[in-house]
Amino acid sequence: MPRTINFNAGPATLPLAALERAQAELTDFASTGMSVMEHSHRGKEYEAVHDEAIALMRELTGVPDSHAIVFLQGGATQHFAQIPMNFVPQGGSADLVVTGAWGEKAETEGIPAAKLVGGTLRIAADTGKPAGKTKSYVRVPRKDEIKIDPNAAYVHFTSNETIHGVQYTEIPDSGNVPLVCDMSSDFLWRKMDYSRFSMVYAGAQKNIGPSGIVVALIRKDFLERGNKSLPKILQYKTAVDQNSLYNTPPTFAIYLVRNVLAWLKSTGGLARIEKDNREKAKLVYEVIDEHAEMFRCPVEKSSRSTMNVVFTLPSAELERKFLEEAKAERMVGLKGHRSVGGIRVSLYNAVSLDWTRTLAEFMAEFAARNW
Amino acid sequence: MPRTINFNAGPATLPLAALERAQAELTDFASTGMSVMEHSHRGKEYEAVHDEAIALMRELTGVPDSHAIVFLQGGATQHFAQIPMNFVPQGGSADLVVTGAWGEKAETEGIPAAKLVGGTLRIAADTGKPAGKTKSYVRVPRKDEIKIDPNAAYVHFTSNETIHGVQYTEIPDSGNVPLVCDMSSDFLWRKMDYSRFSMVYAGAQKNIGPSGIVVALIRKDFLERGNKSLPKILQYKTAVDQNSLYNTPPTFAIYLVRNVLAWLKSTGGLARIEKDNREKAKLVYEVIDEHAEMFRCPVEKSSRSTMNVVFTLPSAELERKFLEEAKAERMVGLKGHRSVGGIRVSLYNAVSLDWTRTLAEFMAEFAARNW
Repeated sequence: MPRTINFNAGPATLPLAALERAQAELTDFASTGMSVMEHSHRGKEYEAVHDEAIALMRELTGVPDSHAIVFLQGGATQHFAQIPMNFVPQGGSADLVVTGAWGEKAETEGIPAAKLVGGTLRIAADTGKPAGKTKSYVRVPRKDEIKIDPNAAYVHFTSNETIHGVQYTEIPDSGNVPLVCDMSSDFLWRKMDYSRFSMVYAGAQKNIGPSGIVVALIRKDFLERGNKSLPKILQYKTAVDQNSLYNTPPTFAIYLVRNVLAWLKSTGGLARIEKDNREKAKLVYEVIDEHAEMFRCPVEKSSRSTMNVVFTLPSAELERKFLEEAKAERMVGLKGHRSVGGIRVSLYNAVSLDWTRTLAEFMAEFAARNW
Repeated sequence: MPRTINFNAGPATLPLAALERAQAELTDFASTGMSVMEHSHRGKEYEAVHDEAIALMRELTGVPDSHAIVFLQGGATQHFAQIPMNFVPQGGSADLVVTGAWGEKAETEGIPAAKLVGGTLRIAADTGKPAGKTKSYVRVPRKDEIKIDPNAAYVHFTSNETIHGVQYTEIPDSGNVPLVCDMSSDFLWRKMDYSRFSMVYAGAQKNIGPSGIVVALIRKDFLERGNKSLPKILQYKTAVDQNSLYNTPPTFAIYLVRNVLAWLKSTGGLARIEKDNREKAKLVYEVIDEHAEMFRCPVEKSSRSTMNVVFTLPSAELERKFLEEAKAERMVGLKGHRSVGGIRVSLYNAVSLDWTRTLAEFMAEFAARNW
């Protein structure tokens, strides 16, 4: 079966090279007569993979030794709770900036989490507008709309809202307040100064691997402020002190992340992938703007996501037709999130320029044919 | 490379059939032109796998609808904390029975977790004896040694202590106090009444899959007692209500669990595997007892584990020689846990009778040759 053109929002398509490498050695890793997932997490064969994954992450992100790199579990959602538990001090508070469904979730999970440790969360900005039972989000906040409490333990941003297709071009300066960022759906899409964040975390299942593994970069001095009365397993400091081996990590997931990062490096690293990603987003937004009679992107231009392009068609009937015809041409994963509807095109690192061109051509042709 | 004879304690060997199935379809699952890990966790292709894994678990364990079956993350260690957070009421307490390193860990993680929600943990029994910096464990408690508080929210047991090789033949009756059991290293090794537990949980990386996934059986009426002020992601009720899809689950790990369970069923289910497992343990303990001059198992006979056989040799020099010669015959994973030393043979479901015979013959021959 030829490879399907996969625009899934996550779990998402992975580089074929990373999958084929896993396939070739699935039952016999490094000539050991065993799968990598059958190796002890404390043996030298797995250790080499673990260390290489971290080294590649350090090289690609460029974060210096001021930051630790760790693998965690539970998805970003668990960390919406675990971050306040670690970093909101008793009687203190942290700030959230809400720009979409994931920011809302960081709030929903974070409020009871902060309460557990005797603290609170505060909304520093929220760009949501009531829209029926939910809220709509079409832009990131302007700098002057973000009211950061100078005493906040940290301020939490979502760099890219996967469901609403809203992304920061630049994440605002938070002054002396530590910056914590959920980068699940746009981690490693471009070169940037990752070291300006006190904590960056990302579920792997968009740009860097399978679901079931979270990567975090954490400033070591920020880490030291963590709540030390929590159970050890819930303290980020434990994961860092034990090099992500406090308990058995998801070894096969980390192995796959290693494969993806090795592919990313070998194909030119972040500079090359950023160029492709910008070109891919441009291709799709251009066809949207050129066919305004057919495609409507609700997101303000300056907040349009390079990773998740969302748009609607004039009717539910046309959207169904669009999805069916795309599928007939082997393009899948284009249905918008059930909470917002419409179409969503996810253009993560492993989505090729060729795939994107095929989609853009299909969109133009669909618009011409159905108007 | 021929298959290595792998006695790892976990991550452990997996059935070759389950791995080969994964390998064959790694880049093209169910003729979709995509890996199963590239499918949406809400699409029908993955959903079929998810549902089949749960159905196989229900069939193999035989638990009725009184119990929910869920997939979780974080390893057993996270649940050492999460269980008290969910089930210890404010001002209340739960009981722990400590029979080895994992029971100790349930205590270490559990005490601060219970404290977070305003409760405490109490030790109902502890068979540990001081041994240098750590404690030694050589048996499970006698029934009369277990002092369960009748008001305890639950009592927590470790059915098999992987590091110390101590296992219950029968887990004691806890009367009206809900029974919670960490079954990480002996889940599904035999037929038993799994429904007598209010909660059974197990890290997959011993008997049922790769690391990075935890399976739990939870009585629905017990679930309802859970703390509803916790962040949703930390409430077991959420995982149950959302069929383990509240957030993105580790889809590939669940797929592998499905493959392992399908293998288990196709090879005769729990009745057949129990017969093999008892025979395997018998083979190794017999050679230990027959060569008492060379091998010494510290565990009392009635508490000897069928899953992890631990023993020592007369000197560190002989232990080194034993490990080296075993390795030369392609047998690995035999080194005891770093905290206790000696030798450990893990005989999980995927370790064949043939492999075990090869080991037993090697042991007898080693004893004869070195005496």
